Amino acid sequence: MAAQKPSVPKGTRDFSPVEMVKRNFIFDTIKDVFKRYGFLPIETPSMENLSTLLGKYGDEGDKLIFRILDSGDFIKEKGEILINRVLEKSSSVSGSSSCSGDISDGLRSEISEKGLRYDLTVPFARFVVQHLNEITFPFKRYQIQPVWRADRPQKGRYREFYQCDVDVIGSNSLLNEVELIQIIDDVFQKLNINAVIKLNNRKILAGIAEIIGEPDKIMDITIAIDKLEKIGKKGVYDELLGRGVDSGSVSLLNPILELRGDNFAKLSSLKEILKGSEIGLKGVIEVETVLNYFNTLTLKTELELDLTLARGLNYYTGAIIEVKAQDVEIGSICGGGRYDDLTGVFGLKDVSGVGVSFGADRIYDVMQQLDIFPKEIITSTKVLFVNFGEKEELYCLPLIKILRDRDISAEIYPDSSKMKKQMTYADNKNIPYVILVGEDEMQKKLITVKNMISGTQETVLFEDFLKMISQ
Amino acid sequence: MAAQKPSVPKGTRDFSPVEMVKRNFIFDTIKDVFKRYGFLPIETPSMENLSTLLGKYGDEGDKLIFRILDSGDFIKEKGEILINRVLEKSSSVSGSSSCSGDISDGLRSEISEKGLRYDLTVPFARFVVQHLNEITFPFKRYQIQPVWRADRPQKGRYREFYQCDVDVIGSNSLLNEVELIQIIDDVFQKLNINAVIKLNNRKILAGIAEIIGEPDKIMDITIAIDKLEKIGKKGVYDELLGRGVDSGSVSLLNPILELRGDNFAKLSSLKEILKGSEIGLKGVIEVETVLNYFNTLTLKTELELDLTLARGLNYYTGAIIEVKAQDVEIGSICGGGRYDDLTGVFGLKDVSGVGVSFGADRIYDVMQQLDIFPKEIITSTKVLFVNFGEKEELYCLPLIKILRDRDISAEIYPDSSKMKKQMTYADNKNIPYVILVGEDEMQKKLITVKNMISGTQETVLFEDFLKMISQ
Repeated sequence: MAAQKPSVPKGTRDFSPVEMVKRNFIFDTIKDVFKRYGFLPIETPSMENLSTLLGKYGDEGDKLIFRILDSGDFIKEKGEILINRVLEKSSSVSGSSSCSGDISDGLRSEISEKGLRYDLTVPFARFVVQHLNEITFPFKRYQIQPVWRADRPQKGRYREFYQCDVDVIGSNSLLNEVELIQIIDDVFQKLNINAVIKLNNRKILAGIAEIIGEPDKIMDITIAIDKLEKIGKKGVYDELLGRGVDSGSVSLLNPILELRGDNFAKLSSLKEILKGSEIGLKGVIEVETVLNYFNTLTLKTELELDLTLARGLNYYTGAIIEVKAQDVEIGSICGGGRYDDLTGVFGLKDVSGVGVSFGADRIYDVMQQLDIFPKEIITSTKVLFVNFGEKEELYCLPLIKILRDRDISAEIYPDSSKMKKQMTYADNKNIPYVILVGEDEMQKKLITVKNMISGTQETVLFEDFLKMISQ
Repeated sequence: MAAQKPSVPKGTRDFSPVEMVKRNFIFDTIKDVFKRYGFLPIETPSMENLSTLLGKYGDEGDKLIFRILDSGDFIKEKGEILINRVLEKSSSVSGSSSCSGDISDGLRSEISEKGLRYDLTVPFARFVVQHLNEITFPFKRYQIQPVWRADRPQKGRYREFYQCDVDVIGSNSLLNEVELIQIIDDVFQKLNINAVIKLNNRKILAGIAEIIGEPDKIMDITIAIDKLEKIGKKGVYDELLGRGVDSGSVSLLNPILELRGDNFAKLSSLKEILKGSEIGLKGVIEVETVLNYFNTLTLKTELELDLTLARGLNYYTGAIIEVKAQDVEIGSICGGGRYDDLTGVFGLKDVSGVGVSFGADRIYDVMQQLDIFPKEIITSTKVLFVNFGEKEELYCLPLIKILRDRDISAEIYPDSSKMKKQMTYADNKNIPYVILVGEDEMQKKLITVKNMISGTQETVLFEDFLKMISQ
């Protein structure tokens, strides 16, 4: 029988030990910070009912949901229904090929009622409504789990990837926004990534659209403003005209494009510009309130008011947050915002939430590119005992146990293979200490320790080695 | 619009913060032990190609694999092919309903080429072959990930559950079996579960079947022996006769059923009984070798030779291991064994592996039933600052930051809600210290600390509180 050539589905990945250790360093750092701020972990199932998922991510999103074929009973119970349905359809339209999409759509819902998690936000909203009586509000939760999207795979875009979400639900206080910004600051400090946090507010954008008389064109306006640096003021105007914004409205945008100075200078100009828009002013006050907290609380990461952030404009209602790495050209490494009606679709109205999501894959790429993973995390086993045979094994095993009981990872090569093979094993696994115990050492009750980094070797009491390595 | 009543698919679960903390305690304990022994983590994708999964778990297993509907392009590209195929089939058999299973089987493979991970062993074998050149053998890996089975859900059996696998691949040394037993001992010691480790060997069972002249009936014989305590010797004989074992053979089984004494007594009887079977004697020597190691290495968990272990008899070739909790009636909480040809199906012959898998869900149930989760893990936030308003907030935030920077989880209630509401929040989250800073405290540069466990309250310097809580 010809053996299969093994592979993984496109867009998915295996993670080797070295990758895992680095990924876990990122996840653990993020988790530790979340915990310090009193956030609690939850997990939801990988599969959700399609009724939970569909219609939450727009038409494009719906298409990207991986659907799970109904199992087991499917053949017996549904086979016939299915065929009848297809026959019915095909005869009623007399085999017209234009209907095939239609039929397979029908087929699809007939044979699948579950889908894979597409993000962590919708399952979280479902969780909150389903477990309402068990939850203490404000509910501060974090969730680190994979999500799946049937996107066309490409460099840096996968069909299975982890999201690290942290949200507060059930509190309108802007202190939550402040806390999330602190969390972002802490995480990237700890990861040693030089980042910039960009802050915007949906209400300011709504205000801008309102005062220039184009309240329905928030998105177009924001996207056009975003191109200012690249295409200049004239370019932005042309872009907006092309997007159907009236030329009179376009000229009203001028003061926005002229905004200069630091965050507070911008805010003070905006107050003037938006004085005719209630919602716009509300947005300015929100941003100002958040920024004022950082007069007392110092941030190490730069925090910048950026009116061009258009992220998630479809659902965010207040703050919009995005984080970029300063030293690497890559998309945002964290982002989020406030959504005033997170759980409405599941029947729980008027519950406001605010949260951000860390992009573990991009953070990994940034750290890899900058080569800033701490070297010490890569070491797995600290001590390898060379295996010289049965008698030596029995002598060494209790010593290994002592090391392990002190939480020092140690192993003995399982076979008495050639020395060279055992040393190569130590080399490949980056093991810093190799212990050699032969006839001579056993008699003298000593061990020979080879330091694999310095290359030096010395024969010592096990107790002395233990003291040295426990430090 | 009527809101959806939210729910999760049957057989799947949400995990609340309290459950998560307990589950993570189990996972972290297991991981820490794995690491001490020099095992390295890997992860594989949730979905594998069906060609990787099918045919590896028997016919029953194949049926329990969750299949993923091909995505995106499916409607346009496959719709028509699909319908033509169905039409073709149905016309060629003139609508006979007996063929529907056939057709929907065909349909199924037409529209699905991926399945969800069913266990961690097959993906691991695939991983080893795919990444052969990057791996140092013997390869000691652990893997903790969910698996999915379209089983009928029932109490304690889920459609999504975690497996915690630890395996050594590429070494025949029995030292690996010894290490796995040590790992089991360490894990259950740390979890405070009183367990018994049962050890068997496929070669001994083969030897028994051989000497009684029924080499093909290993499974029947083992299952029958397993019932000895329940149904007595006569019962076992009847059972075997019923399973088609010759009555002459059955009587040859007598010495096996008469085995008494400790492990070494049993081994010495087995040596006598199996002296006519080469493979049987080999099994005895293997078990003896493993047990002999524990003359030097003490185990805290009982280790018992148990000839009735029939676990995984289809694929294990040497050691068979199973662990039971002593104080709770529940199935095995850990199990595994040696398989001599793990990667053969993917084209890599003669690579022996040995490993065990910890059943996190059952371990959880055992610990829950015995109420042995350490109380301190349940605490999330250690310090809550009551929110008395804006001015107090600004005073408290830098203090909170100091706590967090020392890795003490702290939070401030995000709104200046009524005192009662804030205290209830602290209660529900099991927060041990609540800090009150009002006008008076701010003036005197003091804080009032309420100990939520003792109910006492005192006004102190923040620095003194910090010292106390950092200990």
